[in-house]
Amino acid sequence: MSQSKLSELTWREVRRSGEDGIALLPIGSQEQHAAHLPMGTDTLLVEEVVERALDLLAREAHHPEVVLLPALPFGHSPHHLFAAAVSLSAATLSAVLDDILDSLVTSGHRRILIVNGHGGNDEIMRLAVKRFALRSEATVAACSYWTLTSAGHEVGRPDVTPGHAGWFETSLMLAARPDLVRTPVHARTPVEPPPLFDNPPYPGLTVERHGEWARVGGSTDDPSTADAASGGQLLDDRAQGLARAIAAFDAATQ
Amino acid sequence: MSQSKLSELTWREVRRSGEDGIALLPIGSQEQHAAHLPMGTDTLLVEEVVERALDLLAREAHHPEVVLLPALPFGHSPHHLFAAAVSLSAATLSAVLDDILDSLVTSGHRRILIVNGHGGNDEIMRLAVKRFALRSEATVAACSYWTLTSAGHEVGRPDVTPGHAGWFETSLMLAARPDLVRTPVHARTPVEPPPLFDNPPYPGLTVERHGEWARVGGSTDDPSTADAASGGQLLDDRAQGLARAIAAFDAATQ
Amino acid sequence: MSQSKLSELTWREVRRSGEDGIALLPIGSQEQHAAHLPMGTDTLLVEEVVERALDLLAREAHHPEVVLLPALPFGHSPHHLFAAAVSLSAATLSAVLDDILDSLVTSGHRRILIVNGHGGNDEIMRLAVKRFALRSEATVAACSYWTLTSAGHEVGRPDVTPGHAGWFETSLMLAARPDLVRTPVHARTPVEPPPLFDNPPYPGLTVERHGEWARVGGSTDDPSTADAASGGQLLDDRAQGLARAIAAFDAATQ
Amino acid sequence: MSQSKLSELTWREVRRSGEDGIALLPIGSQEQHAAHLPMGTDTLLVEEVVERALDLLAREAHHPEVVLLPALPFGHSPHHLFAAAVSLSAATLSAVLDDILDSLVTSGHRRILIVNGHGGNDEIMRLAVKRFALRSEATVAACSYWTLTSAGHEVGRPDVTPGHAGWFETSLMLAARPDLVRTPVHARTPVEPPPLFDNPPYPGLTVERHGEWARVGGSTDDPSTADAASGGQLLDDRAQGLARAIAAFDAATQ
Amino acid sequence: MSQSKLSELTWREVRRSGEDGIALLPIGSQEQHAAHLPMGTDTLLVEEVVERALDLLAREAHHPEVVLLPALPFGHSPHHLFAAAVSLSAATLSAVLDDILDSLVTSGHRRILIVNGHGGNDEIMRLAVKRFALRSEATVAACSYWTLTSAGHEVGRPDVTPGHAGWFETSLMLAARPDLVRTPVHARTPVEPPPLFDNPPYPGLTVERHGEWARVGGSTDDPSTADAASGGQLLDDRAQGLARAIAAFDAATQ
Amino acid sequence: MSQSKLSELTWREVRRSGEDGIALLPIGSQEQHAAHLPMGTDTLLVEEVVERALDLLAREAHHPEVVLLPALPFGHSPHHLFAAAVSLSAATLSAVLDDILDSLVTSGHRRILIVNGHGGNDEIMRLAVKRFALRSEATVAACSYWTLTSAGHEVGRPDVTPGHAGWFETSLMLAARPDLVRTPVHARTPVEPPPLFDNPPYPGLTVERHGEWARVGGSTDDPSTADAASGGQLLDDRAQGLARAIAAFDAATQ
Repeated sequence: MSQSKLSELTWREVRRSGEDGIALLPIGSQEQHAAHLPMGTDTLLVEEVVERALDLLAREAHHPEVVLLPALPFGHSPHHLFAAAVSLSAATLSAVLDDILDSLVTSGHRRILIVNGHGGNDEIMRLAVKRFALRSEATVAACSYWTLTSAGHEVGRPDVTPGHAGWFETSLMLAARPDLVRTPVHARTPVEPPPLFDNPPYPGLTVERHGEWARVGGSTDDPSTADAASGGQLLDDRAQGLARAIAAFDAATQ
Repeated sequence: MSQSKLSELTWREVRRSGEDGIALLPIGSQEQHAAHLPMGTDTLLVEEVVERALDLLAREAHHPEVVLLPALPFGHSPHHLFAAAVSLSAATLSAVLDDILDSLVTSGHRRILIVNGHGGNDEIMRLAVKRFALRSEATVAACSYWTLTSAGHEVGRPDVTPGHAGWFETSLMLAARPDLVRTPVHARTPVEPPPLFDNPPYPGLTVERHGEWARVGGSTDDPSTADAASGGQLLDDRAQGLARAIAAFDAATQ
Repeated sequence: MSQSKLSELTWREVRRSGEDGIALLPIGSQEQHAAHLPMGTDTLLVEEVVERALDLLAREAHHPEVVLLPALPFGHSPHHLFAAAVSLSAATLSAVLDDILDSLVTSGHRRILIVNGHGGNDEIMRLAVKRFALRSEATVAACSYWTLTSAGHEVGRPDVTPGHAGWFETSLMLAARPDLVRTPVHARTPVEPPPLFDNPPYPGLTVERHGEWARVGGSTDDPSTADAASGGQLLDDRAQGLARAIAAFDAATQ
Repeated sequence: MSQSKLSELTWREVRRSGEDGIALLPIGSQEQHAAHLPMGTDTLLVEEVVERALDLLAREAHHPEVVLLPALPFGHSPHHLFAAAVSLSAATLSAVLDDILDSLVTSGHRRILIVNGHGGNDEIMRLAVKRFALRSEATVAACSYWTLTSAGHEVGRPDVTPGHAGWFETSLMLAARPDLVRTPVHARTPVEPPPLFDNPPYPGLTVERHGEWARVGGSTDDPSTADAASGGQLLDDRAQGLARAIAAFDAATQ
Repeated sequence: MSQSKLSELTWREVRRSGEDGIALLPIGSQEQHAAHLPMGTDTLLVEEVVERALDLLAREAHHPEVVLLPALPFGHSPHHLFAAAVSLSAATLSAVLDDILDSLVTSGHRRILIVNGHGGNDEIMRLAVKRFALRSEATVAACSYWTLTSAGHEVGRPDVTPGHAGWFETSLMLAARPDLVRTPVHARTPVEPPPLFDNPPYPGLTVERHGEWARVGGSTDDPSTADAASGGQLLDDRAQGLARAIAAFDAATQ
Repeated sequence: MSQSKLSELTWREVRRSGEDGIALLPIGSQEQHAAHLPMGTDTLLVEEVVERALDLLAREAHHPEVVLLPALPFGHSPHHLFAAAVSLSAATLSAVLDDILDSLVTSGHRRILIVNGHGGNDEIMRLAVKRFALRSEATVAACSYWTLTSAGHEVGRPDVTPGHAGWFETSLMLAARPDLVRTPVHARTPVEPPPLFDNPPYPGLTVERHGEWARVGGSTDDPSTADAASGGQLLDDRAQGLARAIAAFDAATQ
């Protein structure tokens, strides 16, 4: 079998898989997702996309060998602690990623892919990937699941993708884990002005204001129009995108 | 329901559960377990014991509310990197535990229990627990699953409990996840002298010698006599012990 | 005068400026820029854009008070050390930004803008900005100078903007500091395959491969077609963009 | 002479001693020991036991060469700062032990023994020992003096050994340094419930509650029945245990 | 040309200059300098002295090749934050110096000189220099500009040299940057007792008392008698001293 | 009694002594001192000077209360590891001093004096003292024992004071611990050029060259002319200086 879970392999199988395989690490978060979505939303969704992508790959005649690591269920979410979160600091998450990447190389792997489910992990993941490639003779790729699409660019509603606990994530959860969505999903009262972190005053500018997440109630856009059908299409599209990205990464780094 | 998974709760439910509930964090490892057991053995076993213990508690008329966190699937395993492991350094694992404990308190919890599945995590967990109780007005407990028994003391084979990839862990895996045990389990060739870390030259002395794990081939005792029946009894006994410990912790810290 | 240099102010003037003013910190780098551009290219260009932007603002009737800090002349450039660089580690640059931001707040400022001239600083700057807004009752903005345009989106050659030591940076230097460009600028021999960090195998994927900067000779695209006229237009356009962004930041955070 | 103090040796003698000798580092603490024992109790007692053990060894025909380092007089005692202590943080003590162990190896030693006098140092010492053996081609042992007995197991009063400022430590101090014990030693008023750190609600569980040391008045059990005769026997027994442990360590690591 | 600015060199020129040249790094500060001097006084003065010294060297027939780095405009000034400063912590400044020194060696330099303009940087600079020479096969020198005189010892007013925002620095600024001195410079009201950090109770003792800089108003001695003529002579004398020191360093480390 | 050892006090006595007393911490080193002096020379000498100074103070009618801490026997000696040393890194020693100073304040002290016996500790001690006074409402003094003289300035042989393992230290050891000096003390072969760290090429310049301590054989000047009589006078003079410095510190910080 060319797709496997690292936690179920013996160490000799890990060593063998490292010769040609790609080690895949999903990372998520545990953080407030408004009144209707569960704390583990980001972790659940990234695991869902990865599982679907690996299923798609498995159906192809020739496909890369992938060794799936257990997802890191905790991410960098200090901005959600005003409500509830289990958050690793940036320094801690950086160290975790460094240690995992170094362990994989020491254990024989030379191609690694991190798939991220939480926006707050993004810069930390990118820095970890750059650091790693400087110190190790290996190649490492990274992405956030929502940036990979079958078309190579967003075709749904880019204005609210991925957002936080809004139309996009709620649709995906209605498709993937409807049992965990508290329904009916109530409409979000508009907040004025909208949060600066999501609506910078000038294109290309990043702005962070103290207390902004609490002021806007913990979400970025209205989830009440989300639907499971859209969510299913979005999930399949991301899975397609991830499957193609894995194949392309494999081809480019033989 | 008084037992729940944190990843499936909304943040308001997490806040409510923190008032009287106990947050339970399992921690495991991904590391070589000889030729016959999988890398995730410690994580799988601690999750199995926790699940059985929570099931036992759920059957009782009065029982504490427990909120189960996702298991931390990676532990401190630098001594297994000679073969294969995904290991966090002591500093990293310490930081992860600090961040998780602090997050839980910030999110409203005041009673926390860590249940450990890997010997190499033990001192790091103990130090984290002590640090935490000094800086936070909270109470935190910690244990390794194999130290909790229904009788309050070991009744099986204390000479090889827990060991590493030997009789104890192999028996438990034959009971919990027989599909992941590569059979037949071959007898372990005796190593002379036996590893100093497991056989100190004088009682009460700890001795660590460079290269010892590689020298002895990565396990502590012969797994070939392990059996599923013993494993099932041992698992049930640990689950009983953990259930009683949770109830006692609850009673002592109301 | 409503625009001033922090290094030329007395401490009482700094305190007064902090009440309504915006503190602006440029950050650059010292790193190889191929055979024709100097080590300080990124620092020189960010200082040039900032100076032009402040000149534009100064001509307007109503404009925000800006206090310009000395540029940090060193950035995060470990990937250029194969040739030559004076590089701060990610941890060091993070600490420098933390210390500067904290100092400004302690000295009375509550609105701060970082303008970056080097791609390698980007994630570190973003993380510093997010950390800062969580711990301080202040608002902080950040941008890389090439992302701010008068139109709000790129109109020149987005395929090679900003690149490294290629058409974009060479054009800007030919306009800003032609004395420092070694001419004639020779055409860059194409490298096959092009660098993975600049040409990911699938859209949305980040890939870092060991030794890639050395393999491709330290630049991303052909600088030989660069010209001063384009460079002057690009500089003016960025200065326009930055001036508008400062005004918009001022308006949004009164 | 085959037993010597490192502080009295020249560097060439240190180098020579490293070839076959065992470097021995005592570590203690400065912390409150109730109303009747001095701050340095743990340091004084570990030094006493080490001195007696080395005297015992010196009388034997064949005995290992031991180089005694100056005792580290400060340990990890944050839990005693509510009264008085000179405490190193866990990170600091870890760094001190790392630096001492690395220095000894760099100076030519390859066998090292740490003898501890303070419970709070235990996990930190164990982690330091494990880290060290992974990075250096050396062997290192560690123990707390009260765990080494001539019989190989406790024969006195295990229920209150070692405790803190109770029967055990008071008896030892009455034997070793009676001039420093404030007499009469008053009986300790029972505290209900007893401290959770010393009386876990279930066997095998570790529990730490905020403020517990202050609540119970800084000691674990009644010191008023302590006597010098028992203390002398206990000291001799530990010295015997340590002497045998040193000989066994020497034999196992030739 | 044998004197050059690193920021204006291409990387190949940096590599070539490293073979025989001396890399020179000025470090300064941004901190309160009483009511009459600007925040950047220390940086401006060290840059002035370095520029004059390099001019002097350039007139000599045979002189060492010097590559001037951009000045680090920020230093360690936590004691001035009561008024205003942009301060790096000791740990941060240490890391910055380590990174710069390591980068220079990696980029081919083997002789480096740090010239300091701020007393608070002194110990940090010295430690960085010592650390560096232990880990790298290179030679590094360091000085504070006021300690280098043409005579080899102070001939002006050693009692108030360098002081802080007093006679010495004010005289130098009146000579170097009179436009930045707020005149008339008012006499400083004597403070009793004078600050302990500048007036230790016994020769050879260092004393630091909490709040001392705020108590004495941020300066050490009366600046009102400062004059530009003395300042010019002092500057020239320091420049002479630095030029001779550079030549001597060059000769001693060929 | 107004002079006491912290290790012999109960915690309540420590608390009381903190109200008016001065806590005194000696710090030393364990490092090579050429062929004739022991590793612990710096620690032994600083303890000797402190003991003599406290004896002198005790004879005076009115004298400050001093609480003597156990000496820290290890210092910062990485430059001596080429031969033999037990060295703490600069970061570790900094942390140790921070922890000790913080512990003393938490335990009730507000006036602290560090007396140093090893040149390599100097900058680290100064930085620790400055940091401490910024964060704590306390006063702290520091000195190296050789800088305190009865006359307030050096009257012996300043050219070789203190040096390392040369005339000064050897004389003191011949007076204080002649049993530990290996005699006859052989003359030191002159080294050309003399070590740069002790003989800078220009006054006021600090120069550190890789491998310099090994090149010059581990000492700074000829010890063969040292004599016990001079050593005794030097020791008494330093003790006088320290006693006066303590009294002056006491008077200045009532």
